[in-house]
Amino acid sequence: MLKNGERLDDLHRDGLKIIQNPKGFCFGMDVVLLSAFAKVHKGQRALDLCCGNGIVPILLSAKSKGEHFTGLEIQERVADMAKRSVALNGLDGRVSIICGDLRDGGGLPLAGFDVVTCNPPYMAANDGKISPDPALAIARHELECNLDDIAKAAFRLLVPRGTFYMVHRPGRLADIFIAFNKRGLAPKLLRFVHSKAGSAPNLVLIMATKGGGAQLKVDAPLIIYGDDNQYTEEVRGMYYG
Amino acid sequence: MLKNGERLDDLHRDGLKIIQNPKGFCFGMDVVLLSAFAKVHKGQRALDLCCGNGIVPILLSAKSKGEHFTGLEIQERVADMAKRSVALNGLDGRVSIICGDLRDGGGLPLAGFDVVTCNPPYMAANDGKISPDPALAIARHELECNLDDIAKAAFRLLVPRGTFYMVHRPGRLADIFIAFNKRGLAPKLLRFVHSKAGSAPNLVLIMATKGGGAQLKVDAPLIIYGDDNQYTEEVRGMYYG
Repeated sequence: MLKNGERLDDLHRDGLKIIQNPKGFCFGMDVVLLSAFAKVHKGQRALDLCCGNGIVPILLSAKSKGEHFTGLEIQERVADMAKRSVALNGLDGRVSIICGDLRDGGGLPLAGFDVVTCNPPYMAANDGKISPDPALAIARHELECNLDDIAKAAFRLLVPRGTFYMVHRPGRLADIFIAFNKRGLAPKLLRFVHSKAGSAPNLVLIMATKGGGAQLKVDAPLIIYGDDNQYTEEVRGMYYG
Repeated sequence: MLKNGERLDDLHRDGLKIIQNPKGFCFGMDVVLLSAFAKVHKGQRALDLCCGNGIVPILLSAKSKGEHFTGLEIQERVADMAKRSVALNGLDGRVSIICGDLRDGGGLPLAGFDVVTCNPPYMAANDGKISPDPALAIARHELECNLDDIAKAAFRLLVPRGTFYMVHRPGRLADIFIAFNKRGLAPKLLRFVHSKAGSAPNLVLIMATKGGGAQLKVDAPLIIYGDDNQYTEEVRGMYYG
């Protein structure tokens, strides 16, 4: 199952494993937070945009009672890794990985998903140094899709009043709200993620609905490390709960 | 100096006093936070939109080395109260109160201010119950000006690259970013204000510049009350420092 340079990691949940490439795509805490933030209810269909090695659909298949989970990934080699992880975990009936471009909807059914999630590239195309590794460059910088592409795709692929969950950098918040407003996504909930209590936030979790009024709530901060420099109880619950 | 129903409060700073009306307009913690957040440098001219009883220009005149402070207030009776507080404190040369409408620039010079501050009405015109008291209704609901009017006025009245500081409710964040983007204000800094560490934020402080790139920073939370239910050291410094 493993190709050159890949390794198999344990997800500490229902015996699930995931294929990663330490020199290419490895999942970070961001997707663990996103998978805990996103709510997929019984019988719902969920789609993860920019799914990378498939970590979000695989985690959500274990954590929720959703009916089906799709991951869309533009990079063929990364999508192939995700497909092998799905097969390895015996999830072929419940999780599908599609290699495609979200800018044209990836060939997926319009308004076909109750929930859409996304851990997109965080950096604008003109911001900071772009990785010489094309796979990392695409994962980190908005080279193949930007916030507007993502908001547009989420809107088109969600059912009316469907829910979109995203993790991003706090510094992109203005860009996010502007793209959401342009594409018809109504922001409903923000939660900032702080490494330690009292520190500036490193990440922000955002929930929006396809259509709906402007009733935004900002939740209490999510703190990663306690004063003992260990994961807080909340974060331990996300990894092992 | 005092009219019917008014009282004189001590600002605990340079012997300053302020006229308030307990049944009408009284300043809250919001403006203390805003006055501490706003930076007015030596020789700068500052303008406070929706100045109410003049608390922000009066506080900033004591806290900063700014050259001149203007307050713009649409309600004649409230502006009159502010003017009497300015006179009472002997600030006539340094602080001016103008009764006018920010929607037409209040007769103020275009691009005439280095810093603009605002503690606007927090609630959209269609949100929640409107006070039967017209003065309170105008102070709380966007009846006489909305976020777009405020962003437009701030842009017109600021010098190029001038700085706008606002305090608002976190739930209006999407509306704020959209209005700022429409009117050419670039959000630079956010700071959420939490009653207690770990609670959801009640307020947000926002700094934006007239023009400039999108480089938003979200600061560490500002906490009002410590575990002992007393003001934190930071907040004590704002009131008495």
